[in-house]
Amino acid sequence: MEWVAKKNVLIVGLGLMGGSYARALKRLGYHVAALDRDAEAIEYALREHIISEGSADKDERMIREADAIIFALYPGIFPAWVEENQGLFKPGMMLTDVTGVKSCIVYRIQEMLRRDVEFIAAHPMAGRELSGVQNSDDRIFRDANYIIVPTEKNTAKGIEWCAGLGRLLGCGRISVLSPEEHDEMIAFVSQLTHCIAVSLMTCSDNTHLSDYTGDSFRDLTRIARINDKMWSELFMMNREPLLKQMDVFLNELQGFRDMLARGDTEGMRAKMRLSTERRAMFDKR
Amino acid sequence: MEWVAKKNVLIVGLGLMGGSYARALKRLGYHVAALDRDAEAIEYALREHIISEGSADKDERMIREADAIIFALYPGIFPAWVEENQGLFKPGMMLTDVTGVKSCIVYRIQEMLRRDVEFIAAHPMAGRELSGVQNSDDRIFRDANYIIVPTEKNTAKGIEWCAGLGRLLGCGRISVLSPEEHDEMIAFVSQLTHCIAVSLMTCSDNTHLSDYTGDSFRDLTRIARINDKMWSELFMMNREPLLKQMDVFLNELQGFRDMLARGDTEGMRAKMRLSTERRAMFDKR
Repeated sequence: MEWVAKKNVLIVGLGLMGGSYARALKRLGYHVAALDRDAEAIEYALREHIISEGSADKDERMIREADAIIFALYPGIFPAWVEENQGLFKPGMMLTDVTGVKSCIVYRIQEMLRRDVEFIAAHPMAGRELSGVQNSDDRIFRDANYIIVPTEKNTAKGIEWCAGLGRLLGCGRISVLSPEEHDEMIAFVSQLTHCIAVSLMTCSDNTHLSDYTGDSFRDLTRIARINDKMWSELFMMNREPLLKQMDVFLNELQGFRDMLARGDTEGMRAKMRLSTERRAMFDKR
Repeated sequence: MEWVAKKNVLIVGLGLMGGSYARALKRLGYHVAALDRDAEAIEYALREHIISEGSADKDERMIREADAIIFALYPGIFPAWVEENQGLFKPGMMLTDVTGVKSCIVYRIQEMLRRDVEFIAAHPMAGRELSGVQNSDDRIFRDANYIIVPTEKNTAKGIEWCAGLGRLLGCGRISVLSPEEHDEMIAFVSQLTHCIAVSLMTCSDNTHLSDYTGDSFRDLTRIARINDKMWSELFMMNREPLLKQMDVFLNELQGFRDMLARGDTEGMRAKMRLSTERRAMFDKR
């Protein structure tokens, strides 16, 4: 399937991400079908013209007619859905996803997948602290990082097809990482930061402090509003890389604490200078 | 000194905060003098009409003529400046400050201060990740939290005068805390968050990850660009409250890590739900 042809796209899982993909693709003229067990989500999306058609039941016709499927399911149920329904796929169909962990998903699906279709994993680094199709918004892709996560089983054509989707969505930088590189990166830049934000909110009852906070605390804890079902699944499916990053961070913060305890001002200043220098790299885009 | 009268305000320490106060007050019609050892800062502020007059030397006339002094000095040199120059103060003069730590500053200054002037401490919860008068901006006060930090030595009139300044600056919520309450609060909402951001940047060489980050990492580390001299002084001057908060946080994050290690999904989800619920309170203003 080439993106130039306006063919049938099926979205499986119509939540925040699925809905955002649907909005973007329908706006561009694609026929967008959606499956989600939540009938209210489907009804809402139909009423708001976010999708062309949709069903809360497993509609075999929609699966048969799809030229491409985008999976935006919870990671725990994603491989089983593919296994159960791949008999219905059109030969040559393209599959991609939005899942936030890769190693434990990609190999498993590619291993069992029919040889005449291709699954190429992707991870758009975009989202909101809200869930559900009601909060979907295709502006989240604007200038976002879009990561393609191929394995040896993927074709050059498949990778290019996936990049084409990233460009259609309006993503900024499109890059390629292996599943292992992706999972190590995501453990640090996303999962660890969510663990920190959550722990900052739960470590003491601090709600009475909301009258006194500046922007830094608000920014640091924005992501402490979190979908507990999805994120606990993501953490469990990326347990080893995340534990490694948590230990590295805990060790570093403990070291900073010990410098403060012994009055090592120079040591703290050196850390602050390093941090300032490194952080500046993140603003040079 | 009443704020209704357009009298002489002296700013001691013309950096980011001093410059922002100067801009706000000069715009409102006050005569704003400034002292700073950095001649370039003074020249810049004169050229940009941020101040009415200024000097890089200790100009005794400016000190004698001041009806109010706002201290925006590094905390380490602030008390000594007051001790050295209080002989020049006009009787009835009002002093306030912007310092981010209070217990170790306020009692010391009030103890040695002449009895015919009043020092009332304040902390505007506003700032930028940049320093210097060149980056000053009086819009930082808009809707910011402004905290007045009186002791038993302060008068009701002094507190009202200080609140008047907060209102002049355009601050949002103006509140009153004791020095001890202030320092405990600031250790949690500001100092701990800066320690976390710094440690996140220094715990591993992560600059190659800037191509992959989403907003959450950027938000969490925005404050990792930090003035090392000032923040190390602030940390050292608030060592006990900050160590306490760091230990509480380290313990909580370690506990979360251990839940992940033993696969306690329910435990993690309960923490995430608590964090989501608490964080929502910070958005209800």
